[in-house]
Amino acid sequence: MLGEIVTVEMPGHAVAHLSGPSFALEVVSGLPTALTLAISDRKIGEELAHAMATPLFRLYQTTDITGAGIGGAVKNVLAIACGIVTGRAMGDNARAALITRGLAEIIRLGTAAGGKAETLMGLSGLGDLVLTCSSEQSRNLSLGIALGKGRPLADILASRASVTEGVTTAAAALLLAQKHKIEMPIVSAVDAVLNRGANIDAEIKGLLSRPLKAEVA
Amino acid sequence: MLGEIVTVEMPGHAVAHLSGPSFALEVVSGLPTALTLAISDRKIGEELAHAMATPLFRLYQTTDITGAGIGGAVKNVLAIACGIVTGRAMGDNARAALITRGLAEIIRLGTAAGGKAETLMGLSGLGDLVLTCSSEQSRNLSLGIALGKGRPLADILASRASVTEGVTTAAAALLLAQKHKIEMPIVSAVDAVLNRGANIDAEIKGLLSRPLKAEVA
Repeated sequence: MLGEIVTVEMPGHAVAHLSGPSFALEVVSGLPTALTLAISDRKIGEELAHAMATPLFRLYQTTDITGAGIGGAVKNVLAIACGIVTGRAMGDNARAALITRGLAEIIRLGTAAGGKAETLMGLSGLGDLVLTCSSEQSRNLSLGIALGKGRPLADILASRASVTEGVTTAAAALLLAQKHKIEMPIVSAVDAVLNRGANIDAEIKGLLSRPLKAEVA
Repeated sequence: MLGEIVTVEMPGHAVAHLSGPSFALEVVSGLPTALTLAISDRKIGEELAHAMATPLFRLYQTTDITGAGIGGAVKNVLAIACGIVTGRAMGDNARAALITRGLAEIIRLGTAAGGKAETLMGLSGLGDLVLTCSSEQSRNLSLGIALGKGRPLADILASRASVTEGVTTAAAALLLAQKHKIEMPIVSAVDAVLNRGANIDAEIKGLLSRPLKAEVA
């Protein structure tokens, strides 16, 4: 993750990670925003938070850089899944269930990689996920919607100047999940559609026919 | 809660609680829906789940009736808060932050009352909250939107034939929070607006000027 690269390239410097539900346009418009500030040095973190925060730009501090990084990355994959559900007109119930079960996958991956469940249930996990899955301003969501409506991936990508992070993150998240031997059925289905030529309807059917289990994160 | 009343009135019968993100219209239309089935008797629960579930109506089982009940009730209060934020045009960032910090309040209350965090992070907590806060089909959300736009509560209630659960739940949740000595600043602000004549803008300002803390549930 980015934080790890910076740590290697710039040793001896504290790395801070600002993450959470924040469309930039709303921040500069002075609309209220709350974010996670992740930094291992608690004291520098407090100084940073007090220097940057205002009543309309609230910063919640954590030392859990791993959790903040994983939440911020994997939410993009789930936004594509939410888009597919929206594009296929599968309803609000399905979308809410997908966000819930998707967060459970993020928490499984994040805690297996050494992050904290609290971070992933917070602004840089759940908060960011809710925003990205709810607003058409999100590039990942709109890519999923186009896919769900049946437009081919290559077409969608060719028409975009900006990067849609979720496409590459799906494969990376799945590799990390395999390394930690945890299941991420939704992320795996998105990766199959994006990177392994799978059929969308077959993947949806596969998710819906998984055995019933107890509800645990 | 309802489950407790049924247990008292009908002793010796297993009480099951079905809860989660489910607009009935979507369920009868055959759109995919996933819910929590809470029942203390695991064996009867498994029989019920297998009798009722289909690939398009997925039931995740838990024995945590308290958690499922609190999640399903308190989400209505937060939906009113989400509506106020929407009605006041405070933006998507604020809405996502409100859902995240609102879920933290639900988890605090639910675990203090003996429920499990996993249940509240699941379909009957987070899932139901996301649905209720995102869809104008929700009576609580639409009441909040009208309040946020400046319409008086008495006016809104007088124009409705149906019950808006969040109005009475706000006071009940706050009483339970006080009993367990936990903080629920968002629920308290909603209750102040609904039941104690507080000014909406003053309550929003109060929430935004709370001291910065570490991000924990």
